[in-house]
Amino acid sequence: MVNFTLHNPVKLVFGKGMIAELKNLIPGGTKVLMTYGGGSIKKNGVYDQVRQALAGYDVVEFGGIEANPRYETCMKAAELAKKEKVGFLLAVGGGSVLDGTKFIAVAATYTAGDPWEIMEGRVPVKAALPLGAVMTLPATGSEMNTYSVISRDSIGEKLAFGSDHVYPKFSILDPETTFSLPLRQTENGIVDTWVHVMEQYMNDVECSALTSRLAESVLKTLVEMAPKVIAKPTDYNVRAELMWCATVGLNGWLGLGAAAQDWATHMIGHELTALYGLDHARTLAVIMPAVHRFQLKRKQARLAQFGTRVFHLVEGDEATRAAQAIDRMEAFFQSMEVPTRLLAYGIDAAVAGKQVAERLSKRGRKLGEYEDIGPVEVEAIMNLAK
Amino acid sequence: MVNFTLHNPVKLVFGKGMIAELKNLIPGGTKVLMTYGGGSIKKNGVYDQVRQALAGYDVVEFGGIEANPRYETCMKAAELAKKEKVGFLLAVGGGSVLDGTKFIAVAATYTAGDPWEIMEGRVPVKAALPLGAVMTLPATGSEMNTYSVISRDSIGEKLAFGSDHVYPKFSILDPETTFSLPLRQTENGIVDTWVHVMEQYMNDVECSALTSRLAESVLKTLVEMAPKVIAKPTDYNVRAELMWCATVGLNGWLGLGAAAQDWATHMIGHELTALYGLDHARTLAVIMPAVHRFQLKRKQARLAQFGTRVFHLVEGDEATRAAQAIDRMEAFFQSMEVPTRLLAYGIDAAVAGKQVAERLSKRGRKLGEYEDIGPVEVEAIMNLAK
Repeated sequence: MVNFTLHNPVKLVFGKGMIAELKNLIPGGTKVLMTYGGGSIKKNGVYDQVRQALAGYDVVEFGGIEANPRYETCMKAAELAKKEKVGFLLAVGGGSVLDGTKFIAVAATYTAGDPWEIMEGRVPVKAALPLGAVMTLPATGSEMNTYSVISRDSIGEKLAFGSDHVYPKFSILDPETTFSLPLRQTENGIVDTWVHVMEQYMNDVECSALTSRLAESVLKTLVEMAPKVIAKPTDYNVRAELMWCATVGLNGWLGLGAAAQDWATHMIGHELTALYGLDHARTLAVIMPAVHRFQLKRKQARLAQFGTRVFHLVEGDEATRAAQAIDRMEAFFQSMEVPTRLLAYGIDAAVAGKQVAERLSKRGRKLGEYEDIGPVEVEAIMNLAK
Repeated sequence: MVNFTLHNPVKLVFGKGMIAELKNLIPGGTKVLMTYGGGSIKKNGVYDQVRQALAGYDVVEFGGIEANPRYETCMKAAELAKKEKVGFLLAVGGGSVLDGTKFIAVAATYTAGDPWEIMEGRVPVKAALPLGAVMTLPATGSEMNTYSVISRDSIGEKLAFGSDHVYPKFSILDPETTFSLPLRQTENGIVDTWVHVMEQYMNDVECSALTSRLAESVLKTLVEMAPKVIAKPTDYNVRAELMWCATVGLNGWLGLGAAAQDWATHMIGHELTALYGLDHARTLAVIMPAVHRFQLKRKQARLAQFGTRVFHLVEGDEATRAAQAIDRMEAFFQSMEVPTRLLAYGIDAAVAGKQVAERLSKRGRKLGEYEDIGPVEVEAIMNLAK
């Protein structure tokens, strides 16, 4: 177990009817920029709930933040925030809206140059407008963490940044807002949460026994809830569990005490989204089994433990259970009709492998827990995902 | 799953060598009151580490805070804090020192009368001096919560209070400081942590599937680590797991989404400590199995789930597994040579039952998840613990 610091100041306000709490969470008299996405919140009643709760506030709106939020869009919102001199940003929507809003919060206070410098890691974040969230899609965990992923079309880039300055002051999670989510987005959210947990869990050097079990708890709950939400999308308790899983999945708790994490799947996935426009979660479902098969020997013990504890595998030796564990994970994704192979998207593994390898090569960094996944290894992983 | 708010602002600083971080955690120039207990920190090197880290600060000391910290002692420390005009309290020791320091923090700013009014719940806490902790005994979870339990000898009372004002600004947990703990205190800490988890877990109305699994994670880790710490008290990773378990055991996470908790064991245990001077944890080990046997029928499903998931019970029907689960819990306590019956302490169950019943009767409140454990039921529970 390695040293760690845990300090997560986000106020999580969870449950039905909680959007009305907005008036107690944003200081009175503050001018608010309300950000949202493609307008689904206007169909499912969330928009009206938020506007009603903000009745006493001066509110400016900025809609149209995309899935995989774009730099170009966020910069327009940041200009608006500056022009209107807003004092608080309220993201209403899914992880993309919140990720975008985190970047807007930084960009609106950044005067030293182009805020993209922050995405490239060349400049540290020194300030941000305060922000809060009403989350309507459980997936990214963005509601209780410091991370944001932004895409920039003009240069075909998708990059992440993180800063304590963009911790939401609060996040409201009302599971009822997820009742109307399309099945595809619900399933994507489950896969995204799953992969977040696994990328923290799948280290084999040094970690905490307790933290590992906390991670397994989220995985087991996802396995339990996935068929239930498909069977009955309006089951409040099931929706609540999925929302709670997504938050715990990436609020920092599941990495505590571990020497390393392994985000190779996300890194490769981001490239696939940038290249082929695939849904973020769907890239993960394709890449994660391949990454684990690639690392099978080295991470055999950890994979076997995962299989035994999450999928109750008891037959066979460690090597057998490790291999079975990956098969079971892939079958879990497939049970939600989420494809796990490149072929399903008409993508040639050899071609895509070369493309992704080339992009990673340009970035000059290697991936995975041991930072040993370079261009050659990426091509091998992509071949395992064919 | 019921609505909840999660907002825990404590900065947890965990790991070996972390005491040196004090200088980065307490604002420079602050006058510090360092509180501690019976002086074990002077033998195990913790005192020296703390004083070294505080080299640049004006430090006043107050030692002698007891296990089951006494109101009378804490009031003396509060007077000292006022007289010395300190700006920060630093508790160095176990849960008792920290609980005492939380009360000192409130008492030192309370001018409206006798601070005991706060313990009696007659006055809300409106202010407190800022405080931090260096924890040397994993047990109470006080390092990441708002609670404090104080005893008042002159009237034979032991009461609890809680307030956001006494959240520690930070808590430093260095597992190496626990290497020299006597076995009895180590075991007491495991029992205390266990019971905290169970009292949050053992509700049967409405709860969260994920939160339940998080709770089971702590219980499973305690079962795994208890024999290891007895075998090798200086195993860093084992000590670290126990410390991490104690914090998660009562930092609020394990109650999220549940409609109720059941603190009957603690309430009865506090009376036994007040009456007979038994160690807090040892009262819990005696009372908890009896409380569960008393509630066996009503909580059968939850007890069976606990037994299946924590002790891997698979034989027999639900009623059988529920009863076995309690037996296994009692055996777990006994495996640490912690007695689970009143007789082991020479206490007559009938006499003690009447005494505890009378005290609870005077308080005029009933115990347990359903608030249905009154004097008659307490006598029955005490009889089950004979």
